Amino acid sequence: MNKLYTIIVAGGSGLRMQTSVPKQFLLLNGLPVLMHTINRFYKIDKQQTIVLVLPAEHSDYWSKLCQEYNFKTPHIVTNGGKTRFESVKNGLSLVSQESIVVIHDGVRPLVSAKTILLCKKKALEFGNAIPVIDMDESVRMITEQGSVSVERNRYKKVQTPQVFKSSVIIEAYKQDYSPLFTDDASVVENMGVEINLVEGNKENIKITHSSDLLIASELIKQMVDI
Amino acid sequence: MNKLYTIIVAGGSGLRMQTSVPKQFLLLNGLPVLMHTINRFYKIDKQQTIVLVLPAEHSDYWSKLCQEYNFKTPHIVTNGGKTRFESVKNGLSLVSQESIVVIHDGVRPLVSAKTILLCKKKALEFGNAIPVIDMDESVRMITEQGSVSVERNRYKKVQTPQVFKSSVIIEAYKQDYSPLFTDDASVVENMGVEINLVEGNKENIKITHSSDLLIASELIKQMVDI
Repeated sequence: MNKLYTIIVAGGSGLRMQTSVPKQFLLLNGLPVLMHTINRFYKIDKQQTIVLVLPAEHSDYWSKLCQEYNFKTPHIVTNGGKTRFESVKNGLSLVSQESIVVIHDGVRPLVSAKTILLCKKKALEFGNAIPVIDMDESVRMITEQGSVSVERNRYKKVQTPQVFKSSVIIEAYKQDYSPLFTDDASVVENMGVEINLVEGNKENIKITHSSDLLIASELIKQMVDI
Repeated sequence: MNKLYTIIVAGGSGLRMQTSVPKQFLLLNGLPVLMHTINRFYKIDKQQTIVLVLPAEHSDYWSKLCQEYNFKTPHIVTNGGKTRFESVKNGLSLVSQESIVVIHDGVRPLVSAKTILLCKKKALEFGNAIPVIDMDESVRMITEQGSVSVERNRYKKVQTPQVFKSSVIIEAYKQDYSPLFTDDASVVENMGVEINLVEGNKENIKITHSSDLLIASELIKQMVDI
Protein backbone atom coordinates (compact mmCIF):
# COMPACT_ATOMS: atom_id res chain seq x y z
CA MET A 1 0.00 0.00 0.00
CA ASN A 2 1.20 3.50 -0.83
CA LYS A 3 2.00 5.88 1.99
CA LEU A 4 -0.45 8.78 2.20
CA TYR A 5 0.51 12.44 2.70
CA THR A 6 -2.02 15.21 3.12
CA ILE A 7 -0.63 18.69 2.56
CA ILE A 8 -2.90 21.37 3.98
CA VAL A 9 -2.08 24.79 2.61
CA ALA A 10 -2.92 27.62 5.00
CA GLY A 11 -0.81 30.41 3.64
CA GLY A 12 -3.39 33.17 3.42
CA SER A 13 -2.80 36.27 5.47
CA GLY A 14 -6.54 36.89 5.67
CA LEU A 15 -6.50 40.38 4.20
CA ARG A 16 -9.95 39.89 2.75
CA MET A 17 -11.56 39.20 6.14
CA GLN A 18 -11.09 42.79 7.33
CA THR A 19 -9.80 41.41 10.59
CA SER A 20 -6.34 40.93 12.04
CA VAL A 21 -6.87 37.17 12.45
CA PRO A 22 -6.19 35.19 9.25
CA LYS A 23 -9.31 33.35 8.17
CA GLN A 24 -7.98 29.83 8.80
CA PHE A 25 -7.76 30.64 12.52
CA LEU A 26 -11.29 32.02 12.90
CA LEU A 27 -13.79 29.99 14.87
CA LEU A 28 -16.29 27.73 13.15
CA ASN A 29 -18.72 26.33 15.73
CA GLY A 30 -16.20 27.05 18.46
CA LEU A 31 -13.12 25.50 16.81
CA PRO A 32 -10.57 27.17 14.49
CA VAL A 33 -11.33 26.45 10.83
CA LEU A 34 -7.93 24.79 10.31
CA MET A 35 -8.55 22.24 13.07
CA HIS A 36 -11.81 21.20 11.42
CA THR A 37 -9.94 20.78 8.14
CA ILE A 38 -7.13 18.70 9.64
CA ASN A 39 -9.63 16.51 11.49
CA ARG A 40 -11.58 15.82 8.30
CA PHE A 41 -8.55 14.13 6.79
CA TYR A 42 -7.26 12.46 9.95
CA LYS A 43 -10.62 10.76 10.54
CA ILE A 44 -10.50 8.77 7.35
CA ASP A 45 -6.88 7.55 7.68
CA LYS A 46 -4.98 7.68 10.96
CA GLN A 47 -1.74 6.30 9.47
CA GLN A 48 -1.16 9.17 7.06
CA THR A 49 1.27 12.08 7.47
CA ILE A 50 -0.51 15.42 7.63
CA VAL A 51 1.69 18.36 6.63
CA LEU A 52 0.40 21.81 7.54
CA VAL A 53 2.01 24.57 5.47
CA LEU A 54 1.78 27.81 7.45
CA PRO A 55 3.47 31.22 7.06
CA ALA A 56 6.50 31.31 9.39
CA GLU A 57 5.04 34.30 11.25
CA HIS A 58 1.93 32.29 12.17
CA SER A 59 3.61 29.23 13.66
CA ASP A 60 3.79 30.56 17.23
CA TYR A 61 0.15 31.58 17.09
CA TRP A 62 -0.76 28.12 15.80
CA SER A 63 1.13 26.45 18.68
CA LYS A 64 -0.77 28.57 21.16
CA LEU A 65 -4.08 27.71 19.49
CA CYS A 66 -3.25 23.99 19.64
CA GLN A 67 -2.64 24.32 23.38
CA GLU A 68 -5.72 26.43 23.97
CA TYR A 69 -8.01 24.01 22.12
CA ASN A 70 -6.12 20.92 23.30
CA PHE A 71 -5.67 19.93 19.66
CA LYS A 72 -3.84 16.61 19.51
CA THR A 73 -4.38 15.49 15.92
CA PRO A 74 -0.89 14.51 14.67
CA HIS A 75 0.55 16.86 12.07
CA ILE A 76 3.86 18.36 10.95
CA VAL A 77 4.12 22.13 10.48
CA THR A 78 6.31 23.56 7.73
CA ASN A 79 6.80 27.10 6.49
CA GLY A 80 4.86 28.53 3.59
CA GLY A 81 6.33 30.55 0.74
CA LYS A 82 5.38 33.86 -0.79
CA THR A 83 2.83 32.27 -3.13
CA ARG A 84 0.58 29.21 -2.96
CA PHE A 85 2.89 27.60 -5.55
CA GLU A 86 5.90 28.00 -3.25
CA SER A 87 3.93 26.82 -0.23
CA VAL A 88 2.88 23.59 -1.95
CA LYS A 89 6.46 23.09 -3.15
CA ASN A 90 7.71 23.41 0.45
CA GLY A 91 5.14 20.85 1.58
CA LEU A 92 6.15 18.47 -1.20
CA SER A 93 9.78 18.53 -0.02
CA LEU A 94 8.63 16.42 2.96
CA VAL A 95 6.94 13.77 0.81
CA SER A 96 8.64 10.41 0.19
CA GLN A 97 8.67 8.58 -3.16
CA GLU A 98 5.99 6.00 -3.97
CA SER A 99 3.27 7.79 -2.09
CA ILE A 100 -0.11 9.40 -2.70
CA VAL A 101 -0.26 13.15 -2.08
CA VAL A 102 -3.48 14.93 -1.16
CA ILE A 103 -3.31 18.74 -1.43
CA HIS A 104 -6.09 20.70 0.23
CA ASP A 105 -6.96 24.31 1.04
CA GLY A 106 -6.86 24.94 4.79
CA VAL A 107 -9.95 27.11 4.45
CA ARG A 108 -12.14 24.29 3.09
CA PRO A 109 -13.23 22.59 6.33
CA LEU A 110 -16.42 21.11 4.84
CA VAL A 111 -14.94 18.55 2.47
CA SER A 112 -16.84 15.28 2.87
CA ALA A 113 -15.21 11.91 3.53
CA LYS A 114 -16.84 10.73 0.29
CA THR A 115 -15.12 13.45 -1.75
CA ILE A 116 -11.72 12.62 -0.23
CA LEU A 117 -12.15 8.88 -0.76
CA LEU A 118 -13.39 9.25 -4.36
CA CYS A 119 -10.38 11.42 -5.26
CA LYS A 120 -7.95 9.08 -3.56
CA LYS A 121 -9.37 6.00 -5.29
CA LYS A 122 -9.26 7.57 -8.74
CA ALA A 123 -5.77 9.01 -8.22
CA LEU A 124 -4.47 5.58 -7.17
CA GLU A 125 -5.77 4.18 -10.44
CA PHE A 126 -5.07 7.03 -12.87
CA GLY A 127 -2.32 9.09 -11.23
CA ASN A 128 -4.46 12.11 -10.32
CA ALA A 129 -8.01 13.21 -9.47
CA ILE A 130 -9.73 16.44 -8.47
CA PRO A 131 -13.29 17.18 -7.29
CA VAL A 132 -15.55 19.40 -9.37
CA ILE A 133 -19.15 20.58 -8.99
CA ASP A 134 -21.73 21.92 -11.44
CA MET A 135 -22.16 25.61 -12.20
CA ASP A 136 -25.53 26.52 -10.74
CA GLU A 137 -25.84 29.85 -12.48
CA SER A 138 -25.61 31.07 -16.07
CA VAL A 139 -22.06 31.81 -17.16
CA ARG A 140 -20.66 34.51 -19.45
CA MET A 141 -17.22 34.61 -20.96
CA ILE A 142 -15.46 37.98 -21.20
CA THR A 143 -14.14 38.59 -24.70
CA GLU A 144 -12.20 41.41 -26.29
CA GLN A 145 -15.45 42.75 -27.75
CA GLY A 146 -17.50 42.44 -24.57
CA SER A 147 -18.98 39.20 -23.23
CA VAL A 148 -20.90 36.20 -24.50
CA SER A 149 -23.21 33.62 -22.94
CA VAL A 150 -21.66 30.14 -22.78
CA GLU A 151 -23.17 26.69 -22.19
CA ARG A 152 -22.95 26.36 -18.45
CA ASN A 153 -22.96 22.55 -18.44
CA ARG A 154 -19.65 22.63 -20.26
CA TYR A 155 -18.03 24.29 -17.23
CA LYS A 156 -17.27 22.98 -13.75
CA LYS A 157 -16.17 24.63 -10.53
CA VAL A 158 -12.97 23.14 -9.15
CA GLN A 159 -12.46 22.34 -5.47
CA THR A 160 -9.80 20.62 -3.41
CA PRO A 161 -8.54 18.02 -2.32
CA GLN A 162 -6.48 17.51 -5.45
CA VAL A 163 -4.82 14.10 -5.26
CA PHE A 164 -1.75 12.86 -7.14
CA LYS A 165 0.81 10.10 -7.20
CA SER A 166 3.93 11.64 -5.63
CA SER A 167 6.02 11.06 -8.77
CA VAL A 168 3.56 13.13 -10.84
CA ILE A 169 3.14 16.08 -8.48
CA ILE A 170 6.80 16.36 -7.44
CA GLU A 171 7.84 16.42 -11.10
CA ALA A 172 5.15 19.02 -11.94
CA TYR A 173 6.32 21.39 -9.19
CA LYS A 174 9.82 21.45 -10.70
CA GLN A 175 8.40 23.69 -13.44
CA ASP A 176 8.82 27.45 -13.27
CA TYR A 177 5.84 29.29 -11.81
CA SER A 178 3.21 30.57 -14.25
CA PRO A 179 0.28 32.89 -13.42
CA LEU A 180 -1.94 30.31 -15.14
CA PHE A 181 -1.28 27.91 -12.23
CA THR A 182 -4.48 28.57 -10.25
CA ASP A 183 -4.50 25.15 -8.62
CA ASP A 184 -2.37 21.99 -8.48
CA ALA A 185 -4.22 20.38 -11.37
CA SER A 186 -3.24 23.22 -13.68
CA VAL A 187 0.44 22.72 -12.70
CA VAL A 188 0.24 19.01 -13.54
CA GLU A 189 -1.81 19.65 -16.68
CA ASN A 190 0.92 21.98 -17.94
CA MET A 191 3.14 18.89 -18.34
CA GLY A 192 0.61 17.42 -20.79
CA VAL A 193 -1.06 15.14 -18.23
CA GLU A 194 -4.84 14.60 -18.49
CA ILE A 195 -6.70 15.51 -15.27
CA ASN A 196 -9.37 13.16 -13.90
CA LEU A 197 -12.54 14.63 -12.42
CA VAL A 198 -14.73 13.26 -9.65
CA GLU A 199 -17.95 14.69 -8.24
CA GLY A 200 -17.24 16.96 -5.26
CA ASN A 201 -19.61 17.96 -2.45
CA LYS A 202 -21.37 21.29 -2.76
CA GLU A 203 -20.82 22.18 0.92
CA ASN A 204 -17.03 22.17 0.41
CA ILE A 205 -16.81 25.96 0.11
CA LYS A 206 -13.67 28.05 0.47
CA ILE A 207 -13.90 30.46 3.39
CA THR A 208 -12.78 33.67 1.73
CA HIS A 209 -15.19 36.30 3.05
CA SER A 210 -16.67 36.72 6.54
CA SER A 211 -20.08 35.71 5.20
CA ASP A 212 -18.63 32.35 4.15
CA LEU A 213 -17.97 31.56 7.80
CA LEU A 214 -21.64 32.02 8.66
CA ILE A 215 -22.60 29.91 5.67
CA ALA A 216 -20.16 27.20 6.73
CA SER A 217 -21.63 27.10 10.23
CA GLU A 218 -25.05 26.38 8.71
CA LEU A 219 -23.77 23.85 6.20
CA ILE A 220 -21.81 21.89 8.79
CA LYS A 221 -25.03 21.13 10.67
CA GLN A 222 -26.44 19.28 7.69
CA MET A 223 -23.45 17.19 6.75
CA VAL A 224 -24.16 13.65 7.85
CA ASP A 225 -20.61 12.38 7.50
CA ILE A 226 -18.98 15.12 9.58
CA MET B 1 -39.79 59.15 -17.41
CA ASN B 2 -40.23 55.56 -18.55
CA LYS B 3 -42.77 53.37 -16.79
CA LEU B 4 -41.16 50.56 -14.81
CA TYR B 5 -42.32 46.94 -14.80
CA THR B 6 -40.79 44.25 -12.62
CA ILE B 7 -41.58 40.70 -13.71
CA ILE B 8 -40.89 38.19 -10.96
CA VAL B 9 -40.73 34.66 -12.28
CA ALA B 10 -41.76 32.05 -9.73
CA GLY B 11 -42.50 29.10 -11.96
CA GLY B 12 -40.52 26.40 -10.25
CA SER B 13 -42.39 23.45 -8.85
CA GLY B 14 -39.72 22.92 -6.22
CA LEU B 15 -38.91 19.32 -7.11
CA ARG B 16 -35.34 19.77 -5.95
CA MET B 17 -36.34 20.75 -2.41
CA GLN B 18 -37.62 17.25 -1.59
CA THR B 19 -40.67 18.85 -0.12
CA SER B 20 -44.21 19.40 -1.32
CA VAL B 21 -43.95 23.17 -0.89
CA PRO B 22 -42.29 24.91 -3.87
CA LYS B 23 -39.17 26.73 -2.75
CA GLN B 24 -40.46 30.24 -3.40
CA PHE B 25 -43.10 29.70 -0.68
CA LEU B 26 -40.73 28.45 2.00
CA LEU B 27 -40.09 30.68 4.98
CA LEU B 28 -37.00 32.85 5.18
CA ASN B 29 -36.80 34.49 8.61
CA GLY B 30 -40.53 33.93 9.06
CA LEU B 31 -41.72 35.29 5.69
CA PRO B 32 -42.18 33.37 2.39
CA VAL B 33 -39.19 33.85 0.08
CA LEU B 34 -41.34 35.38 -2.64
CA MET B 35 -42.61 38.14 -0.35
CA HIS B 36 -39.05 39.13 0.48
CA THR B 37 -38.29 39.25 -3.25
CA ILE B 38 -41.32 41.39 -4.11
CA ASN B 39 -40.59 43.77 -1.24
CA ARG B 40 -36.98 44.25 -2.40
CA PHE B 41 -38.24 45.76 -5.64
CA TYR B 42 -41.22 47.63 -4.24
CA LYS B 43 -39.02 49.46 -1.72
CA ILE B 44 -36.96 51.19 -4.36
CA ASP B 45 -39.87 52.34 -6.57
CA LYS B 46 -43.46 52.41 -5.33
CA GLN B 47 -44.88 53.60 -8.66
CA GLN B 48 -43.83 50.55 -10.67
CA THR B 49 -46.02 47.63 -11.73
CA ILE B 50 -44.89 44.33 -10.20
CA VAL B 51 -46.01 41.29 -12.19
CA LEU B 52 -45.73 37.95 -10.42
CA VAL B 53 -45.67 34.99 -12.83
CA LEU B 54 -46.92 31.94 -10.96
CA PRO B 55 -48.03 28.45 -12.11
CA ALA B 56 -51.86 28.48 -12.32
CA GLU B 57 -52.05 25.67 -9.74
CA HIS B 58 -50.25 27.83 -7.17
CA SER B 59 -52.40 30.94 -7.38
CA ASP B 60 -54.92 29.89 -4.71
CA TYR B 61 -52.14 28.94 -2.37
CA TRP B 62 -50.48 32.32 -2.98
CA SER B 63 -53.72 34.16 -2.18
CA LYS B 64 -53.99 32.27 1.10
CA LEU B 65 -50.37 33.07 1.94
CA CYS B 66 -50.98 36.76 1.24
CA GLN B 67 -53.90 36.72 3.68
CA GLU B 68 -52.02 34.75 6.29
CA TYR B 69 -49.00 37.06 6.21
CA ASN B 70 -51.10 40.17 5.66
CA PHE B 71 -49.01 40.87 2.54
CA LYS B 72 -50.20 44.14 0.99
CA THR B 73 -47.39 45.00 -1.44
CA PRO B 74 -49.21 45.80 -4.73
CA HIS B 75 -48.65 43.22 -7.46
CA ILE B 76 -50.47 41.56 -10.36
CA VAL B 77 -50.48 37.76 -10.62
CA THR B 78 -50.36 36.08 -14.02
CA ASN B 79 -50.03 32.42 -15.01
CA GLY B 80 -46.70 30.84 -15.82
CA GLY B 81 -46.03 28.56 -18.78
CA LYS B 82 -44.38 25.18 -19.05
CA THR B 83 -40.90 26.66 -19.27
CA ARG B 84 -39.21 29.77 -17.89
CA PHE B 85 -39.21 31.12 -21.46
CA GLU B 86 -43.01 30.82 -21.69
CA SER B 87 -43.45 32.28 -18.22
CA VAL B 88 -41.43 35.39 -19.04
CA LYS B 89 -43.33 35.71 -22.32
CA ASN B 90 -46.64 35.63 -20.42
CA GLY B 91 -45.36 38.32 -18.07
CA LEU B 92 -44.22 40.47 -20.99
CA SER B 93 -47.74 40.44 -22.48
CA LEU B 94 -48.76 42.79 -19.64
CA VAL B 95 -45.99 45.30 -20.35
CA SER B 96 -46.73 48.55 -22.16
CA GLN B 97 -44.52 50.14 -24.82
CA GLU B 98 -41.88 52.72 -23.85
CA SER B 99 -41.12 51.13 -20.54
CA ILE B 100 -38.22 49.55 -18.67
CA VAL B 101 -38.65 45.88 -17.83
CA VAL B 102 -36.88 44.23 -14.90
CA ILE B 103 -36.95 40.42 -14.94
CA HIS B 104 -36.02 38.64 -11.72
CA ASP B 105 -36.01 35.13 -10.29
CA GLY B 106 -38.56 34.77 -7.49
CA VAL B 107 -36.07 32.67 -5.56
CA ARG B 108 -33.45 35.43 -5.35
CA PRO B 109 -34.69 37.40 -2.32
CA LEU B 110 -31.26 38.85 -1.46
CA VAL B 111 -30.75 41.19 -4.39
CA SER B 112 -29.47 44.52 -3.11
CA ALA B 113 -31.02 47.88 -3.91
CA LYS B 114 -27.63 48.85 -5.35
CA THR B 115 -27.68 45.94 -7.83
CA ILE B 116 -31.20 46.81 -8.98
CA LEU B 117 -30.41 50.51 -9.36
CA LEU B 118 -27.13 49.90 -11.22
CA CYS B 119 -28.86 47.60 -13.71
CA LYS B 120 -31.74 50.01 -14.20
CA LYS B 121 -29.44 52.96 -14.79
CA LYS B 122 -27.31 51.14 -17.32
CA ALA B 123 -30.33 49.67 -19.14
CA LEU B 124 -31.88 53.12 -19.44
CA GLU B 125 -28.73 54.31 -21.16
CA PHE B 126 -27.74 51.26 -23.22
CA GLY B 127 -30.95 49.25 -23.66
CA ASN B 128 -30.02 46.37 -21.35
CA ALA B 129 -27.96 45.43 -18.31
CA ILE B 130 -27.43 42.34 -16.19
CA PRO B 131 -25.54 41.76 -12.91
CA VAL B 132 -22.55 39.43 -12.83
CA ILE B 133 -20.11 38.39 -10.11
CA ASP B 134 -16.61 36.94 -10.15
CA MET B 135 -15.91 33.21 -10.17
CA ASP B 136 -14.35 32.53 -6.79
CA GLU B 137 -13.06 29.08 -7.66
CA SER B 138 -10.89 27.61 -10.40
CA VAL B 139 -12.88 26.68 -13.50
CA ARG B 140 -12.50 23.79 -15.93
CA MET B 141 -14.10 23.46 -19.33
CA ILE B 142 -15.35 20.04 -20.40
CA THR B 143 -14.08 19.13 -23.86
CA GLU B 144 -14.59 16.13 -26.09
CA GLN B 145 -11.22 14.80 -24.98
CA GLY B 146 -11.74 15.41 -21.25
CA SER B 147 -11.41 18.77 -19.52
CA VAL B 148 -9.06 21.73 -19.44
CA SER B 149 -8.27 24.48 -16.94
CA VAL B 150 -9.44 27.92 -18.11
CA GLU B 151 -8.60 31.44 -16.93
CA ARG B 152 -11.22 32.05 -14.28
CA ASN B 153 -11.09 35.85 -14.54
CA ARG B 154 -12.39 35.52 -18.10
CA TYR B 155 -15.65 34.06 -16.75
CA LYS B 156 -18.48 35.60 -14.74
CA LYS B 157 -21.47 34.16 -12.92
CA VAL B 158 -24.75 35.68 -14.09
CA GLN B 159 -27.53 36.74 -11.72
CA THR B 160 -30.83 38.55 -12.04
CA PRO B 161 -32.40 41.17 -12.22
CA GLN B 162 -31.88 41.41 -15.96
CA VAL B 163 -33.14 44.76 -17.15
CA PHE B 164 -34.19 45.81 -20.67
CA LYS B 165 -35.98 48.48 -22.60
CA SER B 166 -39.42 47.00 -23.35
CA SER B 167 -38.92 47.28 -27.12
CA VAL B 168 -35.78 45.12 -26.91
CA ILE B 169 -37.08 42.38 -24.65
CA ILE B 170 -40.54 42.09 -26.26
CA GLU B 171 -38.94 41.71 -29.69
CA ALA B 172 -36.45 39.13 -28.36
CA TYR B 173 -39.20 36.96 -26.89
CA LYS B 174 -40.84 36.69 -30.34
CA GLN B 175 -38.05 34.28 -31.29
CA ASP B 176 -38.61 30.54 -31.17
CA TYR B 177 -37.37 28.89 -28.00
CA SER B 178 -33.83 27.48 -28.00
CA PRO B 179 -32.27 25.32 -25.28
CA LEU B 180 -29.36 27.80 -25.30
CA PHE B 181 -31.68 30.40 -23.72
CA THR B 182 -30.59 29.97 -20.09
CA ASP B 183 -31.54 33.50 -19.09
CA ASP B 184 -33.13 36.63 -20.61
CA ALA B 185 -29.78 38.05 -21.69
CA SER B 186 -29.10 35.00 -23.87
CA VAL B 187 -32.49 35.51 -25.57
CA VAL B 188 -31.68 39.14 -26.33
CA GLU B 189 -28.10 38.32 -27.31
CA ASN B 190 -29.39 35.82 -29.87
CA MET B 191 -30.71 38.83 -31.85
CA GLY B 192 -27.15 40.16 -32.13
CA VAL B 193 -27.50 42.66 -29.30
CA GLU B 194 -24.45 43.28 -27.06
CA ILE B 195 -25.21 42.67 -23.35
CA ASN B 196 -24.03 45.18 -20.74
CA LEU B 197 -22.65 43.91 -17.44
CA VAL B 198 -22.80 45.53 -14.03
CA GLU B 199 -21.33 44.30 -10.75
CA GLY B 200 -23.90 42.24 -8.82
CA ASN B 201 -23.99 41.52 -5.08
CA LYS B 202 -22.55 38.21 -3.92
CA GLU B 203 -25.40 37.58 -1.44
CA ASN B 204 -27.93 37.45 -4.31
CA ILE B 205 -28.01 33.65 -4.40
CA LYS B 206 -30.69 31.53 -6.05
CA ILE B 207 -32.50 29.36 -3.54
CA THR B 208 -32.37 26.00 -5.27
CA HIS B 209 -31.51 23.54 -2.51
CA SER B 210 -32.69 23.41 1.11
CA SER B 211 -29.20 24.37 2.27
CA ASP B 212 -29.49 27.62 0.28
CA LEU B 213 -32.36 28.68 2.53
CA LEU B 214 -30.15 28.38 5.62
CA ILE B 215 -27.41 30.27 3.84
CA ALA B 216 -29.88 32.99 2.86
CA SER B 217 -31.06 33.40 6.44
CA GLU B 218 -27.45 34.08 7.48
CA LEU B 219 -26.70 36.39 4.57
CA ILE B 220 -29.83 38.49 5.07
CA LYS B 221 -28.62 39.48 8.56
CA GLN B 222 -25.52 41.12 7.11
CA MET B 223 -27.09 43.08 4.29
CA VAL B 224 -27.13 46.69 5.31
CA ASP B 225 -29.54 47.85 2.63
CA ILE B 226 -32.25 45.25 3.34
